[in-house]
Amino acid sequence: MHAVDFNSDMGESFGPWTIGDGVDSELMAFISSANIATGFHAGDPGTMRRTLEQAKQLQVAVGAHPGFRDLVGFGRRHINAPAQELVDDIFYQLGALRELARIQGMNLQHIKPHGALYMHLARDEEAARLFVQTLHQLDPALMLYCMPNSATWRVAQELGQPTVREFYADRDYDLSGSIVFTRKVRALDPEEVAARVVRACQQGKVMTVEGQDLAIEFDSICLHSDTPGALALVQATRAALDAAGIRVATP
Amino acid sequence: MHAVDFNSDMGESFGPWTIGDGVDSELMAFISSANIATGFHAGDPGTMRRTLEQAKQLQVAVGAHPGFRDLVGFGRRHINAPAQELVDDIFYQLGALRELARIQGMNLQHIKPHGALYMHLARDEEAARLFVQTLHQLDPALMLYCMPNSATWRVAQELGQPTVREFYADRDYDLSGSIVFTRKVRALDPEEVAARVVRACQQGKVMTVEGQDLAIEFDSICLHSDTPGALALVQATRAALDAAGIRVATP
Amino acid sequence: MHAVDFNSDMGESFGPWTIGDGVDSELMAFISSANIATGFHAGDPGTMRRTLEQAKQLQVAVGAHPGFRDLVGFGRRHINAPAQELVDDIFYQLGALRELARIQGMNLQHIKPHGALYMHLARDEEAARLFVQTLHQLDPALMLYCMPNSATWRVAQELGQPTVREFYADRDYDLSGSIVFTRKVRALDPEEVAARVVRACQQGKVMTVEGQDLAIEFDSICLHSDTPGALALVQATRAALDAAGIRVATP
Amino acid sequence: MHAVDFNSDMGESFGPWTIGDGVDSELMAFISSANIATGFHAGDPGTMRRTLEQAKQLQVAVGAHPGFRDLVGFGRRHINAPAQELVDDIFYQLGALRELARIQGMNLQHIKPHGALYMHLARDEEAARLFVQTLHQLDPALMLYCMPNSATWRVAQELGQPTVREFYADRDYDLSGSIVFTRKVRALDPEEVAARVVRACQQGKVMTVEGQDLAIEFDSICLHSDTPGALALVQATRAALDAAGIRVATP
Repeated sequence: MHAVDFNSDMGESFGPWTIGDGVDSELMAFISSANIATGFHAGDPGTMRRTLEQAKQLQVAVGAHPGFRDLVGFGRRHINAPAQELVDDIFYQLGALRELARIQGMNLQHIKPHGALYMHLARDEEAARLFVQTLHQLDPALMLYCMPNSATWRVAQELGQPTVREFYADRDYDLSGSIVFTRKVRALDPEEVAARVVRACQQGKVMTVEGQDLAIEFDSICLHSDTPGALALVQATRAALDAAGIRVATP
Repeated sequence: MHAVDFNSDMGESFGPWTIGDGVDSELMAFISSANIATGFHAGDPGTMRRTLEQAKQLQVAVGAHPGFRDLVGFGRRHINAPAQELVDDIFYQLGALRELARIQGMNLQHIKPHGALYMHLARDEEAARLFVQTLHQLDPALMLYCMPNSATWRVAQELGQPTVREFYADRDYDLSGSIVFTRKVRALDPEEVAARVVRACQQGKVMTVEGQDLAIEFDSICLHSDTPGALALVQATRAALDAAGIRVATP
Repeated sequence: MHAVDFNSDMGESFGPWTIGDGVDSELMAFISSANIATGFHAGDPGTMRRTLEQAKQLQVAVGAHPGFRDLVGFGRRHINAPAQELVDDIFYQLGALRELARIQGMNLQHIKPHGALYMHLARDEEAARLFVQTLHQLDPALMLYCMPNSATWRVAQELGQPTVREFYADRDYDLSGSIVFTRKVRALDPEEVAARVVRACQQGKVMTVEGQDLAIEFDSICLHSDTPGALALVQATRAALDAAGIRVATP
Repeated sequence: MHAVDFNSDMGESFGPWTIGDGVDSELMAFISSANIATGFHAGDPGTMRRTLEQAKQLQVAVGAHPGFRDLVGFGRRHINAPAQELVDDIFYQLGALRELARIQGMNLQHIKPHGALYMHLARDEEAARLFVQTLHQLDPALMLYCMPNSATWRVAQELGQPTVREFYADRDYDLSGSIVFTRKVRALDPEEVAARVVRACQQGKVMTVEGQDLAIEFDSICLHSDTPGALALVQATRAALDAAGIRVATP
């Protein structure tokens, strides 16, 4: 792998509150694609505008990061809603960001559902199908960030919607290829995370929680901006990728 | 006047709640332009989609009806916010509706701010200027519904943004040309309202609360869907316009 | 059975929106206990105050009706939240109503969780235990409305918290004793509903969807104010209870 | 002055977001009274519970800190609402905190409206009267934190509701005795702030922005937890008070 996309969630502030250490603007310098929160789980119109302005300045590609309508739960709590309701919510949010981006003269590169909505669409065939079909009819070139082998990914393959498969730098994997979900993410060592990413890029392998290697394929590295110590993790990862001769670039 | 636009606020339900008598779908048959609530004062993504579908079926033109972020106050309470914050909120909402409309293969005809935001932009020069400038840069052909001689209207004239001046069928005027604001709108007589509208169209005059006529110019009649008895008012007005040979058509 | 409680959900308006046909004040004349929405799924502080005032005037006992934090979903969508989070939400809402009741010189009689939260607590042992334990420590005399044999009911029995078991007049039962959940409640015939309630009171039996009788025990009849035609259903039921000599009274 | 109360706003996190530097738990060690956000401008039920637990552990007195219903604006934007609506909102929030405090075996010491609501009640005679009258009828011993000579303070004096007059350590005064409002609070020097507070306590004087001294009377020092560098400011102020022999204690 000579080049890889590097994405992170950006603009997850809300009103007076900033997320993580409020390091969006610093973090942005190290990534190629920013997933911008669109107001339902985080992000407000002003934050969205400012995040777009930062991305424009740093030539980072932008995408919509829609979530469940759940500010207090940060979109991390599953809500049992019909597929059509979720799809309506997603395109409402996508359009909101697209308009604010247009004001900046920017186009959206991608869409990546957030948190529990991402997981729901990865598993729920009906919701995934309605989502990807609607997306495909509306904007067949918009890249869809997703997990390989998820329902979202499968429907996108079927319909020909371009996908970007993600590797999670700050999450543990198990042998089934699933991410080990933890409510509270533990502090991570930047060098370890960086080495793990480079190995994944060069060898296509990641060590699982069971202690065995798992073969993985991906097009983008994801590192969450609200993981404790996110800035150091992103910097170390970027430095390791540069040192290994792996170029960070949009998909 | 041989033809006039007839607009009404639509899609002002929220989740389980419907507004007025829930007569949107019936009312829609009598108007030419629908202002669709965009989620901040009323309207949710599902309601927005369904309202767009109804408008499409009845060939009613659609526009965005963004409001203050205030569900409990239905966007009728002024919120003291900086101009940039309000403009961010407006374009977030405009984009949300535009995207849902695009899914239906529909274009937006216009934008009309709601309630206290409409009044704020009519009076606040700074907010009006930032709003209309941003709109003009983004979409110079999108029609702007506004009150004649309002700040919004003046800035739009100056920049060349197309405007649609409104006549309020269900509100009283005073001699200054202002609408007499009442928190609680009284029940109105359909025949009286209809006669008042036809007179305004034919003679360009409306009787004020002071008992004297006021000269008025307008391009569109507005009748609120949450005015008590809205459906009867709209039907009577439409019938009277038809009888007077005044065609109801988009601007 | 010589007497039975009759409860209904009240105050489920929000801001400009009323629920059902907005018949709370009429419906209130026929019931003995009102479950007042407390702001998270429906209800706002002003609506809560007005609903308390109506209940006071009609000498109807009042209780808190807390729900998931989900206005757009009306508390009918399950949200995957930790037990402690839900319990915090419940007592926040309980206290809010208690304070507004105190201003009216009223005491709360009961608490009854709403919709998906009611069902969650009926099934989730951990959440039910934390909820009932906290309630018992705080207010050991506050009546808890619940389904017989639910987790909520079992923990309350164990701790000695007084319970009021409900019979749902406007929902179908199956042979397992569960309510047959439907997203959209069909229109019901007032005479049928009334006869079903009287039979349940007199014979302790209800006809299930399978066509066989189910034995039931209960202390209160519940009829939802947002069931289509709720006022007619409540009136017919009350008339039939009166005619059968079954007194409607608080538990 | 041998003793003075020292209050700060606490619990102004919301869901995933913390305010200021998230130093509530550290700050709490230096103050005597905590104003706990009650959910409308900041604070969620879980945060309220945890803040109460911290206050209990550190023996800090607690009060309700209700605000306008405006999360995105942090209760800092004035909302034009009728007095009754605001009063309903205030007591809803007061009750919510009171209930969560009761679970901890704690009583509320006081109430202090937040931000734009504090200012509104300080100026609007009608709203102040309805608020203080309702409070007085409900809980005549609950202390009311307010500005000397504000409408709130005057009505409380008239009715006999106990008041606690505040001195703002981190805000500038002008010669009219008003606080100079700034949207963005500048960074402050801890030693300067501490010296200013000690002088105010010992001499009853504060230097105004006009460069002349203003005589002031107060019962409590307020220092905002979201002022940049709040922890250092609070620590320095507390150390200076201790050094000056002025005991920090509840009113």
